[in-house]
Amino acid sequence: MNIDTMQFADRFNGISGSAIREIFKLLAVPGMISFAGGNPSPDSLPDVQAAELAKELLLANGKNLLQYGATEGYAPLRESLVPYLKDRFSITCAQDEVLPVTGSTQAMDLLCKALINPGDKVVVENPTFLGNMQCIKLYQAQLIPVDSDDDGIDVNALEEVFKKEHPKMLYIIPTFQNPTGRTLSLERRKKVALLAAQYGVVVAEDDPYRDLRYAGEELPSIKSFDTEGWVAFMGSFSKVISPGLRVGFLCANPTLLRKCTIGKQSSDVHSANLNQAIVDAYIRRGMLMPHVADICKSYGEKMETMLDMLSKCGGVARYTRPEGGLFIFAELEEGRNALELLKKAVDKKVAYVPGTHFYAEGGHENTFRLNFSMPSVEQIKIGMTALNEVFSE
Amino acid sequence: MNIDTMQFADRFNGISGSAIREIFKLLAVPGMISFAGGNPSPDSLPDVQAAELAKELLLANGKNLLQYGATEGYAPLRESLVPYLKDRFSITCAQDEVLPVTGSTQAMDLLCKALINPGDKVVVENPTFLGNMQCIKLYQAQLIPVDSDDDGIDVNALEEVFKKEHPKMLYIIPTFQNPTGRTLSLERRKKVALLAAQYGVVVAEDDPYRDLRYAGEELPSIKSFDTEGWVAFMGSFSKVISPGLRVGFLCANPTLLRKCTIGKQSSDVHSANLNQAIVDAYIRRGMLMPHVADICKSYGEKMETMLDMLSKCGGVARYTRPEGGLFIFAELEEGRNALELLKKAVDKKVAYVPGTHFYAEGGHENTFRLNFSMPSVEQIKIGMTALNEVFSE
Repeated sequence: MNIDTMQFADRFNGISGSAIREIFKLLAVPGMISFAGGNPSPDSLPDVQAAELAKELLLANGKNLLQYGATEGYAPLRESLVPYLKDRFSITCAQDEVLPVTGSTQAMDLLCKALINPGDKVVVENPTFLGNMQCIKLYQAQLIPVDSDDDGIDVNALEEVFKKEHPKMLYIIPTFQNPTGRTLSLERRKKVALLAAQYGVVVAEDDPYRDLRYAGEELPSIKSFDTEGWVAFMGSFSKVISPGLRVGFLCANPTLLRKCTIGKQSSDVHSANLNQAIVDAYIRRGMLMPHVADICKSYGEKMETMLDMLSKCGGVARYTRPEGGLFIFAELEEGRNALELLKKAVDKKVAYVPGTHFYAEGGHENTFRLNFSMPSVEQIKIGMTALNEVFSE
Repeated sequence: MNIDTMQFADRFNGISGSAIREIFKLLAVPGMISFAGGNPSPDSLPDVQAAELAKELLLANGKNLLQYGATEGYAPLRESLVPYLKDRFSITCAQDEVLPVTGSTQAMDLLCKALINPGDKVVVENPTFLGNMQCIKLYQAQLIPVDSDDDGIDVNALEEVFKKEHPKMLYIIPTFQNPTGRTLSLERRKKVALLAAQYGVVVAEDDPYRDLRYAGEELPSIKSFDTEGWVAFMGSFSKVISPGLRVGFLCANPTLLRKCTIGKQSSDVHSANLNQAIVDAYIRRGMLMPHVADICKSYGEKMETMLDMLSKCGGVARYTRPEGGLFIFAELEEGRNALELLKKAVDKKVAYVPGTHFYAEGGHENTFRLNFSMPSVEQIKIGMTALNEVFSE
C-alpha cells in the first residue's frame, strides 16, 4: 500500500510542532542577536567543572553509572533532593515522593500521562509556556486559559472556572513566569493550594526559574501550602546547571508519583545515571548555590540593561518588570503587530518571539517576549537599539 | 477533597507496573545469582574509556554539549548513524530518517504516540518483551499475539491476522529475540517486509541484540527489504556500550519520523547531548566494533556454559539454542510451574524470570527465561547446579 495511506494517531490532529521553530532556525544566521530563546548564557555553563566531575564519577563508580538504573531515579540524587526541596522550596517530602526525570518537560508529560483522558479540561495561565501547551494538547485535553495580572493568575477567575468547568488540572508557572516574568503573590499561592484541595484539581506547579532572583524576596512554593497532596511540583536544573544534561524532578503524592513512575518505565526505562550523578554532586558538594549566585549577578545586570533600553524604546506601550528569571514581556501600541514586525527586526539581525504564540486562543498580536540571559550586555544594547528603530518607524 | 478521589487516566486501567519488578528486588539479596535481568556484564561496561571521553568531549565542546540541543538529535551522531546503519544493518537512509532517542524504549513509545489510537490492534510475537507490551497497553491498543517457532514468527499466521484483523502495527524482535533468543530467518524477513507493504501495517523492528552474535551468519534487517517505508527500525547502544547512558535511535520514513520528533518535543525536548556525543565518538573513532568483539567472546563462552549445563538439567523438557543475544528460553516438563518453583530457586540464591510474563495472554507456566550475560561463567555453573536441584525434585 502507498505510504501516504499511513494513518497517524488522532492526538496529532491540529499539532504541527512548535510554532517558534522557524524563528529558532533564524538564529543560525551569522550575527543574529537572539532575544528569542530561553537558553542559559554560554558563560554560565560549567564545562570545565562538568568535565572533571564526569571523569571523577565514572572512574569512581562507572560500573554502576553505565549499568541499567532504577526508573525511580539514581538513589543518591533522590536522597539529596529531599533536603534541597526543603531548603529551596519549603517543601517537606519523603524520598518516595520525588522522581528525578529528564527535565521538567518529562515531568509534565508524565503528569498528563497519569491523569489526562481525551476531553479533560486543563486550566493554563493566559499567556503561558507554549511547549507545555503542546504537551497538554497531545493528550487531547481542552485548554482553558485564565488571565493573569502583575500578581500572577487571577484567583477569583480561577475559582469560577474550577466551579463551573471541573478541570482535571491547573498548569501554572508561579515564579518569573514564562513568558511574562511575573511572580504569583504569597496570598495567591496560598489560595491556589486551597482551591486545588477544595475542588479536587491537580496543580502542576512548574518552577524552573525560581533560583534566578535578582531583586525582592523569595516566596514559598504553592506545594509548600499543599496539605492534601493535590499539588505536583516540577523542578529543573536546566537553568541553573545545564539544559543539555536533561535533569529535573517531579515531587508529588506517592500514589500519583507511582503512576508517573510506571509511565516513565514505558517512556524511557530510566533517566541516564551519569547525568543524575553530576547534578547530585552539584547539590551534595555545595557547588549549586555559589554557581547560582554567579549566574544571578550576570543575569541581573543583563535584565537591568534590557529594562533600561526598553524604557527608551519607541512604540512600546508597556512591559513587565520581573524580579528574576529569563524573560520580559512587552506590548506594542494598540493595532501594531509583533508577528509582522519580526521580519523587519530579523533584517536588522535581532530576533524575539511574538507573544501571540503563548496565548491558548491566539490574539494579542501586539505582544512579544524578550530573553535577556543568552545575549551579552553589549548585544542587548545593540539589539535593543535595532528594535527601537523597528518599533519607532 | 480527599486525595483518594483523584481520578487517573483510563490508560492505566489494568496496568500495575512491570510484573517482574518484584523479582528484580530479590536481586539485591546478597549472594543472589541473577539469570533474571537483561543487564550487560559489568566487565563489558567501559568505565575508564567513558571517563576519558566524557572529560575530553566536555573540555573540547562543553559549551555546546551543556546547552539546549535539537529534538532531532546531536548532529554529529545523526551523521555517523547513517554509515553505521548501512554497514551494520544494510539500511540505506538519509539523516532526516534517523532520530537519536533515549534507548529503543523511547523509540517504541514515540512510534505508539505517532500511530496508536485506543482500540487499535498491535500484533506481537508470542512470547515477546514485556516492557514494550506494557508500552503498547498504555496506548490502549489491543495486543494480538502470533506464535513463533525456531525460525521466528509464523508468517502464514501473520498474514492471516493482517488480512482479518487490519492491525495498525507489528512489534517484532527479529534477532536473538527477547525472551526466546530465536532469530527470524532470511526468507521470513523478506516476507514480513512484503506483508507490511501489502497490508499497510507499520512494522516496529526492534533489533538491540544484533551485534551480539557468537555463531552463524549475520542477516540483513527487515528494514533493508522495505521499499515503501512501512518498516520503522529501532536500535540501541544499551547492550554494546552502556544501558545507563540511554542512547538508541529510530530509523523511519521522514513523515512518520517527523511525527515522532514532534512527540519527542513534548516528551523530553531532546536527548542529553553528552550521552549522544559519547556514543558518536565510539562509532566515529572505530571503537565500537572492537569493543563488541570483546563482548561477544565473553558472552559466547557464557552462553555455551549455560547451554551445556541446561543439557544436563533435570526437569527441563526443551530449550532454545540461540546464536547470540542475552537469553535462552526453556520449558519444564508439562504440568510443572516455573512461577512457583521460582520461590525454591530464590531460596537457593538463584533467580530467573517465569516465561508466562512474556505471553500477551499469559499461560505457558512451565516456561522460563535465562540470562547469561550478567553472571560470570563461575556463577552460571553454580546457579545452574542449584536450578538442577530445584527442577529435579
